[in-house]
Amino acid sequence: MPTDSGCFISPTALLSHWQGHRRLTRRVIDVFPDDKFATFAVGGMRPFGELANEMLLMAAPMVRGAVTGTWDTSVNRDLKTKAETLRWWDDSTEELNRLWPQIPAARFAETVTAFGQYTDSLHNLILYVIDNEIHHRGQGYVYLRALGIAPPPFYERA
Amino acid sequence: MPTDSGCFISPTALLSHWQGHRRLTRRVIDVFPDDKFATFAVGGMRPFGELANEMLLMAAPMVRGAVTGTWDTSVNRDLKTKAETLRWWDDSTEELNRLWPQIPAARFAETVTAFGQYTDSLHNLILYVIDNEIHHRGQGYVYLRALGIAPPPFYERA
Repeated sequence: MPTDSGCFISPTALLSHWQGHRRLTRRVIDVFPDDKFATFAVGGMRPFGELANEMLLMAAPMVRGAVTGTWDTSVNRDLKTKAETLRWWDDSTEELNRLWPQIPAARFAETVTAFGQYTDSLHNLILYVIDNEIHHRGQGYVYLRALGIAPPPFYERA
Repeated sequence: MPTDSGCFISPTALLSHWQGHRRLTRRVIDVFPDDKFATFAVGGMRPFGELANEMLLMAAPMVRGAVTGTWDTSVNRDLKTKAETLRWWDDSTEELNRLWPQIPAARFAETVTAFGQYTDSLHNLILYVIDNEIHHRGQGYVYLRALGIAPPPFYERA
């Protein structure tokens, strides 16, 4: 049996995988009608604008914290319009690409306390951010279908 | 800058992460009322029973193929009841735990054609299975909320 010394995925491949998801999520944001983005929801849940805001408040700040050891929680949490969200999304894409190679590979298996309250291995914390994006984007797909709008294909990440 | 020789996550930690997600998905299946599991949906989408069936047809068969190089597509794709789905879920949990350590770590970065049609690195193919589960489970959360049922907490994976 292989020992745990093997590797499932490299940091570079994981970032590439994440950015593929982020391209898809950007398309989901973009396909929402402007007037539904911040208002429409199903079953008393949060509108997609709030979910996208949460994704953005987690992604670059998590990687920034992983690089710097500083967890800035004083960011502007105000909801954005769809256009503002897309601009913020693109800024975060560039920031992730810039910061990611600065994380020493050995750090991913280390235990970190993110934002002063979430203690886990860094790889688990980063996977949580990605998984939370996938989870809420899946909810956005239901909102779009309920609005009669076809969401972008899940498998398309280019 | 670190080279791509580093590791983001080990195979053992990735299986543990996946099984945490699978425990959550099992709870989502279990909280559906029996009579809604195979019938209720929002926006013309598939009911959660069909989504859970898809998850089960992807998970253990993907790992079985990764171990054996044989991709069996002759499985029974019939929809199951909620009780049958839970039993199948538990069987798959055990099969994943048994098969996973048999995948040589070097294989995760190799290019594989799964089920005769999906060609990608094995780590991407496996992440696709996990991400598809998270995506559809998120949709199950909306179905539950639309039914007035509180879904299990997303962060609870024990």
